[in-house]
Amino acid sequence: MHLNLFVYPGGHHEAAWRHGSSDPDRLLDVGHYQDLARSAEAAAFDGVFFADGPSLADNVRYASRFRLEPFTWLSAIAAVTERIGLIATASTTYTEPYNLARLFASLDHLSRGRAGWNIVTTGAPQAAGNFGLDSHPVHAERYARAQDFLEAVTKLWDSWEDEALVADQRSGLFADTDRIHTVDHDGPLLKVRGPLNIPRSPQGRPVYVQAGSSEDGRAFAARHAEAVFTAHQTLGSGQDFYADIKKRAARLGRDPRQLLVLPGISPFIASTEAAARRLHEEFNELTQPEYSLQLLHRLLGVRLSQEELDGPVPRELIETDGERGNGSRFRLVLDIVEREQPTVRELLHRLAGARGHRVIAGTPEQVADQLQQWYEEGAADGFNVMPPWLPGGFDLFAEHVVPILRQRGLFRGEYSGRTLREHYGLPRPASRYAAPRGAAAAVPVA
Amino acid sequence: MHLNLFVYPGGHHEAAWRHGSSDPDRLLDVGHYQDLARSAEAAAFDGVFFADGPSLADNVRYASRFRLEPFTWLSAIAAVTERIGLIATASTTYTEPYNLARLFASLDHLSRGRAGWNIVTTGAPQAAGNFGLDSHPVHAERYARAQDFLEAVTKLWDSWEDEALVADQRSGLFADTDRIHTVDHDGPLLKVRGPLNIPRSPQGRPVYVQAGSSEDGRAFAARHAEAVFTAHQTLGSGQDFYADIKKRAARLGRDPRQLLVLPGISPFIASTEAAARRLHEEFNELTQPEYSLQLLHRLLGVRLSQEELDGPVPRELIETDGERGNGSRFRLVLDIVEREQPTVRELLHRLAGARGHRVIAGTPEQVADQLQQWYEEGAADGFNVMPPWLPGGFDLFAEHVVPILRQRGLFRGEYSGRTLREHYGLPRPASRYAAPRGAAAAVPVA
Repeated sequence: MHLNLFVYPGGHHEAAWRHGSSDPDRLLDVGHYQDLARSAEAAAFDGVFFADGPSLADNVRYASRFRLEPFTWLSAIAAVTERIGLIATASTTYTEPYNLARLFASLDHLSRGRAGWNIVTTGAPQAAGNFGLDSHPVHAERYARAQDFLEAVTKLWDSWEDEALVADQRSGLFADTDRIHTVDHDGPLLKVRGPLNIPRSPQGRPVYVQAGSSEDGRAFAARHAEAVFTAHQTLGSGQDFYADIKKRAARLGRDPRQLLVLPGISPFIASTEAAARRLHEEFNELTQPEYSLQLLHRLLGVRLSQEELDGPVPRELIETDGERGNGSRFRLVLDIVEREQPTVRELLHRLAGARGHRVIAGTPEQVADQLQQWYEEGAADGFNVMPPWLPGGFDLFAEHVVPILRQRGLFRGEYSGRTLREHYGLPRPASRYAAPRGAAAAVPVA
Repeated sequence: MHLNLFVYPGGHHEAAWRHGSSDPDRLLDVGHYQDLARSAEAAAFDGVFFADGPSLADNVRYASRFRLEPFTWLSAIAAVTERIGLIATASTTYTEPYNLARLFASLDHLSRGRAGWNIVTTGAPQAAGNFGLDSHPVHAERYARAQDFLEAVTKLWDSWEDEALVADQRSGLFADTDRIHTVDHDGPLLKVRGPLNIPRSPQGRPVYVQAGSSEDGRAFAARHAEAVFTAHQTLGSGQDFYADIKKRAARLGRDPRQLLVLPGISPFIASTEAAARRLHEEFNELTQPEYSLQLLHRLLGVRLSQEELDGPVPRELIETDGERGNGSRFRLVLDIVEREQPTVRELLHRLAGARGHRVIAGTPEQVADQLQQWYEEGAADGFNVMPPWLPGGFDLFAEHVVPILRQRGLFRGEYSGRTLREHYGLPRPASRYAAPRGAAAAVPVA
C-alpha cells in the first residue's frame, strides 16, 4: 500500500484553522511544513503532495485558501529530508514548458530523485485574468494543450542522455554534445526547440501524477499517468474507477501495475467511534455558511441563501449543461445529492471535510479496516491521506493507524528505495534519444 | 561596503572545472552550494547571487555552462541559512508576471525576508526557440516589456496589504478582503488582473537588482533598481558609471543612496603577487581555444580560427552595428581591444577569468587595497565577488581579505539586520493600496 500526505495550509477541513488545536501563526512558516514532511518521512510515507492553482479563491475571507508555491516550498522541504517523495502540482495551461521542465529537473536533482508532477489543467476560471486572457480555455482545449505540453516537456527531460555529462578534467570535454539533443517539438499548440539547459536528473523525469476523473482526465491518465489521485465516496465508485482506469491503461499496451490509483481519504480518529464523530461534529460547528455557499455555487452553479440551509438541495437548479458539467468534482457532488438527498446544510458539512473527498470518522482499527478493504477489494493501490487538521490530524494517523497497517503486512516498516519511483515501484524511463552504445546519436545539437 | 558571493557552477574562470582543486562530481550537488552559502554567511556577506538564462550555451562542450534553476536552488539554500540574502536572476522576457510574482513572494516568505530579484531581459537569442518564438525580441522591445512587467509584478506584491491576513479564530475572519486588491494592470504589453494568491511577504517585495549597463539598462536601473551589478575594467570607467547612475536616480527624485553600485571582481589570491599571477596563469593554461573563440564570436560577432590566436584582434571585423552593439558587455570588450590592443590569445585570457568582469591577482592586502580604492574613490558601494574557482577561491577571500576589510572598518563583523533590505540599508516599501487606518480601501476585491 502506498501512502502520501496531502499538505494543505491548516488542514483539509475548511474550518481547521479555527480549531483550538491549530496555530494560524504558522500557516506561512516553512518550518511548520518541514516538520510535517519529517513526520511523514519518519512514518515511511511515499511522498508529500502540494496542490496549487494560479489564482486566489474568493472565499479566502473565511478560510486559509491562499496558495503556497510548490517548487520553492518543496525545495526547502527537500533540504531537511532524505527519502520522502515531493509531489508538486503544476498547470499545463498557465506555465511555459521550458520553465516548468527546468523547475522539475532542478527539484529532482536537489532531492536526489524525489520529484513528482501532479499534472493539472487548472479548473478555476479566474486564473485567466491573471495571464491576460479574456476567458479561461474550455475543458477540451485545456486537455489538448496538456497533451501537447506533456510531449514537449518529456522531450526536454530526455534531451540530455544520461551519459552526456562527462566532466573529464584531462581531456577538457565537459559535455558530450553528441548526446545532447535539440527536441524541435512542433505540436498543434506549442513549439519548443531545446535542449534543456540542465543535465538529466536522477529519475530521468518526475513521476507523472494526474488528478482529474472526467472523461478527458481518464483518457489522459490512462495514457500518461503513473499515479492517479481520485475522489470517491463509496467503495463501489472506487472499484468502478479502479477497474476502468486499469483497463484503459492495459488497452493502450501499458502494464496496469505502473498506474497506481490513490483515492483521497480524510480521517477523524479517536479512541471510540462516538468520540471520532464528536470530533468531526466539533469541526463542522466551526464552518461558516457564507464560505460553504460560495463553494456550492462554484461546484454546482447553485446560489443559495442562509435561509435555505435546512431545506433540500434544489436538484432542478443544478446546471448540468455547459463547462461545469465536464469536471469530475461536479459529478461526485451530484452523486451525493442524488444518492443521499441531503439538506443543504448536510451537503455543506459533507463537503467541508475535504472538498468532496471521502471523510471517515472512527477508531484507528476502523480506519485501518476501511483502507484495507479498499486496497484488497480493488479500489485502491494506496491513499492520499488528507488530515482534517495539521499537524495533529496527521500525527494521530501516523501514531495509531500506520502501526496497524504494518502489523497486517499492508505498509512498509521502512524505506527500501531512495527515489519516488522506487517507493512507487516504477521503472526509471530511458531517454528517447539514447542510442545503442557506440552508435552515432540521432539528432546531435548543431 | 556590501559584498555578495556570485555563485557559478565550478567558479567564474572558464577552466575552473578542469583545475585540480575542483571536484566536478559536486557541480550538481546541492550540498556543495549550501556549503558555499554557509561560508558566505559565516563571513557576514550581504547575499549570494545566482545568474540564469532559459537556454543552453553551445560551448557547454568545453565548460560547466549548464544552468541551475535559481528558485529551487535558493530555496534549498534558504533552508540551511538564517541571514544571508538570496538573489535570483529571472527574465522578464520569458516568464509570466503572475508565476514569477508567486515564486519571489514564496522565496521571501520561506527565507523570512531575504529575496532579491536580478531583473534581466535575457541576452541569448537562442532562448526564443525554447518559447515557440521565431526570433528573440530586440533590445528595445525587451526593455519595453521589462518596464511593463515590473509594474505588473510590483502591483501583485502590493495586492495584499500587510494587515490583510487576519486569521482570527473567534470571528472566523481569515483574510480582510477589503485589504486585498485586484490590480487590473493593463499595460502596453501585459494584462494582469490579480490579486496575488499569497499574503504580502516580509520584505514587501524582493530587492530589485539590475545588471545591464547599456543606455536602456541604465535608464531602467536609475528608475527601478535598488542595486546594480556592473562590469568595469578600470577605476575611471567604474567612477564614470557610478556618477552617471547616481545622478540619473537623483534626477528622478530618488535618494541615490538607495541605489547601490556593485561591480564584479574576480580575485586570484596568494601570499605574494608573483604567486597570485602564477595561479592565474595556471588557470589560463587550462582554457580551450574552441570555447574562447565561440565566446568571442558571441560577444563581438567575429569568427576566428586557432591559427589567428597570436595575431592582433581584427578591429575592422567587429560588428559595431546592429543588435549586438546595444549590449553593455559588447562595449566593455571593445574598450579592452581599443585600449590595450591585445593579441587574440591575450584577449581570450582576459575574458576567461570572468567573462569581461575585472580579474585581479595579488596578495590579500593588494586585493583589499583595490576594493578600498574603488569604494572610497566613488566607483563602488560594494562588490559582487566572483571567485575564479569554488569553493577554494572564495575561502581564500573570506579567510584573508575579509579580515583586512574589517580591520580597516570597511566591512561588517557581524549582521545587524535580518533581511536583505536591512543588510543593504534599504527601506521596506509600503503597499500602494494601503489606506490610512480607518479609511476605506480604494479598490476592494469584488
